[in-house]
Amino acid sequence: MATIKAAILGFGTVGQGIYHVVNEKRAQLKAKLGVELEIVKILVRDTKNERVPGTAALLTDSIEDVLAVDGLQVVFEAIVDEEPAFTYLKRAVEQRCHVITANKVMFAKRGMELQQLAKTKGVHVGYEATVAGGVPIIKTMKNILLVNDVSRIQGILNGTTNYMLTKMRQENWSYDEALAEAQRLGYAEADPYNDVSGQDAFKKIMVLCDLAFGEQPNWDDVDVIGINTLTTEQLEDAKAKGLRYRHVAEAEKLEDGTIVAKVAPQLVAPDHPLYPIDDVFNAVAMETNYIGTLTVTGPGAGMYPTASVMVEDYAEIIGKRAGFTVSI
Amino acid sequence: MATIKAAILGFGTVGQGIYHVVNEKRAQLKAKLGVELEIVKILVRDTKNERVPGTAALLTDSIEDVLAVDGLQVVFEAIVDEEPAFTYLKRAVEQRCHVITANKVMFAKRGMELQQLAKTKGVHVGYEATVAGGVPIIKTMKNILLVNDVSRIQGILNGTTNYMLTKMRQENWSYDEALAEAQRLGYAEADPYNDVSGQDAFKKIMVLCDLAFGEQPNWDDVDVIGINTLTTEQLEDAKAKGLRYRHVAEAEKLEDGTIVAKVAPQLVAPDHPLYPIDDVFNAVAMETNYIGTLTVTGPGAGMYPTASVMVEDYAEIIGKRAGFTVSI
Repeated sequence: MATIKAAILGFGTVGQGIYHVVNEKRAQLKAKLGVELEIVKILVRDTKNERVPGTAALLTDSIEDVLAVDGLQVVFEAIVDEEPAFTYLKRAVEQRCHVITANKVMFAKRGMELQQLAKTKGVHVGYEATVAGGVPIIKTMKNILLVNDVSRIQGILNGTTNYMLTKMRQENWSYDEALAEAQRLGYAEADPYNDVSGQDAFKKIMVLCDLAFGEQPNWDDVDVIGINTLTTEQLEDAKAKGLRYRHVAEAEKLEDGTIVAKVAPQLVAPDHPLYPIDDVFNAVAMETNYIGTLTVTGPGAGMYPTASVMVEDYAEIIGKRAGFTVSI
Repeated sequence: MATIKAAILGFGTVGQGIYHVVNEKRAQLKAKLGVELEIVKILVRDTKNERVPGTAALLTDSIEDVLAVDGLQVVFEAIVDEEPAFTYLKRAVEQRCHVITANKVMFAKRGMELQQLAKTKGVHVGYEATVAGGVPIIKTMKNILLVNDVSRIQGILNGTTNYMLTKMRQENWSYDEALAEAQRLGYAEADPYNDVSGQDAFKKIMVLCDLAFGEQPNWDDVDVIGINTLTTEQLEDAKAKGLRYRHVAEAEKLEDGTIVAKVAPQLVAPDHPLYPIDDVFNAVAMETNYIGTLTVTGPGAGMYPTASVMVEDYAEIIGKRAGFTVSI
């Protein structure tokens, strides 16, 4: 039986999750796809730190080592920041590897470029994990777009701030109390800037703009307002009125074709699709022309949700090939 | 450019919707898929009744006429009841047509058989429209199942009863008042039995059992309880406690591998994924091993939502082929 060789770039939470899912699901993937998936290299900074027992022999700190693997076909990428991630994936695509990424910072800026290049090379780019963790919003939207037009997207795309807003409402916690608890639970980083400022959600809504509209607005024209602007009085007032603050990332294609987007706390009423989404959940509501409004809700982060959608990207890519070899 | 010839069986609301969507999206589908889709025959009972202007020449009351079309490749089916729909689709598959159905009554009973046959013939069966109208639950679940296991499904799969329960709670209407209004709005049939008894939702959860678990429970072992058993006192009591009655179709794979299912009114609390789903909306919550609970929500019926997911089935089927010809 054929074996597909794959590498993982970055071996933090998500990278380790990919390794676990691939190994736990080895037999099932083989049975479904007719090929075996083997992780043959893992790119890390410190090869002396064997984070998962049994992986020492796979670790390397050199991208050259990774790309030199004979017959490498798939690269999973779970690094942060634009570089060197983009350069690594570009090189992988150039040598005709399928690439599967969880890197929203890189993908928001360079995703279209990477996809264009992949097209010319006849390989695929999986990026489900760049937006909303385990929520399969990319595949759902791709499918919808085969026939429907999407005119507007509204999402809760950051679980940390949604958790904080939920607790501030339910428990009357202050912003500082909610942040401290989010940090204690591991939802927020020691430096919570990317989450609370809206920058994280901003990158994700830009990825969705590329998919839904084929283009992004000029980044400088997008207002990105964090949840740290909300006062206790505003929250109390909302509660008294039966409304809820959500940290909403939204994008819309106007009648004249212009794309507008913003990230900001918004007051939503009980009939709004994002009203019931509490705690660390993510949700995306899409307005479409034929179907109406579709909402997808689920866990927006975490080792296993994020890693499993990346392995699903792999299965989808490989499954297409295998399916076709059989059916033509 | 190649043209794909397709037929529509049944020209009621959904059948007409397919015709409209195919024509409205002709250019877009052609651009995306590289082939044109042409409706060449429409099977109806009464060929004298031209329901959509310009279709008279396409109408036939003979399935022989339909299947005799030279080069027919796709059959859309939007009839009700098991027969003659199953026999027609079986014949279509035997002559290597892809089939796309909205017929839950037929598919709940004969779906596995039809899919098995299609596999041996190298064609595809699209059945997104059999469950939850415009909500893409079949594709979402298929994708999730590439890597995740689904252990439990809970759905609001009938928009009519969800509308009625919503109004009974919000407006304090009686069951009879809610039913009368649902009929006035066209949500409920003159004979509402299939909706209010739970039989409609039962068929849909059986289709989901086939997909999620590869098998259905014995139909005789499934309790199917309608909403007409609810008393005004129960509804008032629920409201006082901050709970809501939902008409829930659910299925679960137990530890020992047994599949159990039921359809019944259930009291749900605010943290339940089906709590916020009001009016004619449908929703399906899936419990998975890696991702956790995923919920998909949207319009569960209607000409355009249902027809558009059927045309998406077509685009997905044809797109795979076209994609492969190019990328190999």
